[in-house]
Amino acid sequence: MVSSKAFTMTGGDVAYSYTKNSTIQRDVVDAGKELLKEAILKKFDLESLGFDTQSSVVVKIADLGCSVGPNTFFVMENIIEAVELKFLQAKNQNLSALEFQAFFNDHYENDFNILFKTLPPSRNYFAAGVPGSFHGRLFPKSSIHFAHMSYALHFLSKVPKEVVDINKSNVLNSSDKEVVEAYSTQFKNDMECFLNARAEELVPGGLMFILAGAVPDGISVSDTMSGVYNDVMGSCLKDLVKMGVLGEEKVNSFNVPIYPATVTELEAIFRTNGNFSIEKMEKFAQPMKTPLTPEGYALAVRAGSDGLIRNHFGDEFVEQIFNHFTTKIEPNFSKILEITRNNLNLCILLKRI
Amino acid sequence: MVSSKAFTMTGGDVAYSYTKNSTIQRDVVDAGKELLKEAILKKFDLESLGFDTQSSVVVKIADLGCSVGPNTFFVMENIIEAVELKFLQAKNQNLSALEFQAFFNDHYENDFNILFKTLPPSRNYFAAGVPGSFHGRLFPKSSIHFAHMSYALHFLSKVPKEVVDINKSNVLNSSDKEVVEAYSTQFKNDMECFLNARAEELVPGGLMFILAGAVPDGISVSDTMSGVYNDVMGSCLKDLVKMGVLGEEKVNSFNVPIYPATVTELEAIFRTNGNFSIEKMEKFAQPMKTPLTPEGYALAVRAGSDGLIRNHFGDEFVEQIFNHFTTKIEPNFSKILEITRNNLNLCILLKRI
Repeated sequence: MVSSKAFTMTGGDVAYSYTKNSTIQRDVVDAGKELLKEAILKKFDLESLGFDTQSSVVVKIADLGCSVGPNTFFVMENIIEAVELKFLQAKNQNLSALEFQAFFNDHYENDFNILFKTLPPSRNYFAAGVPGSFHGRLFPKSSIHFAHMSYALHFLSKVPKEVVDINKSNVLNSSDKEVVEAYSTQFKNDMECFLNARAEELVPGGLMFILAGAVPDGISVSDTMSGVYNDVMGSCLKDLVKMGVLGEEKVNSFNVPIYPATVTELEAIFRTNGNFSIEKMEKFAQPMKTPLTPEGYALAVRAGSDGLIRNHFGDEFVEQIFNHFTTKIEPNFSKILEITRNNLNLCILLKRI
Repeated sequence: MVSSKAFTMTGGDVAYSYTKNSTIQRDVVDAGKELLKEAILKKFDLESLGFDTQSSVVVKIADLGCSVGPNTFFVMENIIEAVELKFLQAKNQNLSALEFQAFFNDHYENDFNILFKTLPPSRNYFAAGVPGSFHGRLFPKSSIHFAHMSYALHFLSKVPKEVVDINKSNVLNSSDKEVVEAYSTQFKNDMECFLNARAEELVPGGLMFILAGAVPDGISVSDTMSGVYNDVMGSCLKDLVKMGVLGEEKVNSFNVPIYPATVTELEAIFRTNGNFSIEKMEKFAQPMKTPLTPEGYALAVRAGSDGLIRNHFGDEFVEQIFNHFTTKIEPNFSKILEITRNNLNLCILLKRI
């Protein structure tokens, strides 16, 4: 069974590291900046958060699924800048007494050593790393004022048991209803765990700001970024079986713990949970400042899935798999570009009731 | 200039890693357990810490200079066990609502990846790693209830400038008054920074529990564990210069950022700072359950100073230096054993006024 704990971005200083290949994600940070600012200025209510009566305050912020830097540092700076502005507007606040504590969360396998060593030296917050899955509890109760999550909501805690039992690779891509149902159920269960944990940890009135990809209603899974990855990687792995490089059994047991949910599904999950009010749930355009090239796509995919491939197939096959994967991009690139353009980006703002 | 940031315990899975060579330090944990329990039961005042009126509470604990596990995990368990007992004795507390947040602090160079991966899976606290020097601020103001530090007080933030200028290795060992004075002044300045930072971070009534080695009055620096290390390592490095392995200049510029303070010095520093009441400052016997052997001493020294040596002399000389160091232990072992027996262990309990 492939647990999503292996789905950690690539740390270290290698060419395909997340640190060096996160320009697409940097575009997301930039696109999110104004949305973040608006969310905080409109909805971060100092009074209901208990900040109005105190002479000195500590605002606690968490970035869930932060990976390594630098994007999580840009995000933290954007949040703090907006919260400071909010305090400034409140006038009765003593800005010099304001302090920030930033919690950087990701899986145990995340490269926290690199994260810590690349922390901006002149930062205006106290930094802490928190290892663990965001599908479970990470922080004490009522201890977080603002939680942030960027494109991590689609990670499942594991490949659904039913799919593992079927033992046929990239099955999500198929039209097998049972498989899609198993993925969908796993996602609902994981989201329930995620929301219940955050409900404990956020102070009443605390905000959760989520940027996420979502599937427009009526679009099939195979026409999503996740579907394209499954298609191209699946075809690549099947080639390598034919070439005698990989065993069929090994390829069949490879599944990706990702579920691209629809907008309707997400909204239903938030409403059913009931611990949060949906303050905002809007599509937003993500300007691709960096034009996507086949090479850029190859590096981004490797930065994102090197750990998953390495964990399942072993160190000795990683280079060959990604080299062959790269040759499969060119013939599929027009479809990749098209789907990128159709990609639906959601900005979700939840408030702890 | 050698900054003490390099003086991080050895992480990873190597034979001389701190994880595998910390049995001496484990003895310290065991010896400290009863002292910790007594300190918490007698002096951790729930009412003045604001815990008596709340329906749910989060107790925040920091281990400063924690290195990698497992000793810091044993310490955390010991602290939590005693705090739970204290809450149990208070009767009016709702124990089921009690939560703990544990902050593991050490230098940026500490192996936090190993620390996180070896966290006890069934722990009853929320864990966070906090990178940075304890000579500066690490946490928001009034955010820590209990700070712990085990044998880390003697680390200086850097080798004093005056000593670097003299450029003569292991000079603390000499009877040069100017040098001893420079080390002593550096220690006083570092301790002032340390105490002022903790005064900001501890809640009023919060405790700081420190286990530290100290020099009995009337004992010269060369008769301390630190002195013996300087002696033996100094002699080892000089041999390697004669053998043409190391350059004289390189050896001369090697200094250890450690200062073994006397009890009188320490007490004066605490009183001068004025932010803490000295609740306890007592010698304690540290039973050496694990008899010290030359091999054990060699491994413990390497676990503790591999980073310092590696940083100064470079990866390519580390093996040769420690191999030669090991040959120098046998002829000095009776002196090492004698000084170990004379070692003065202090248990210090400070309360934030």
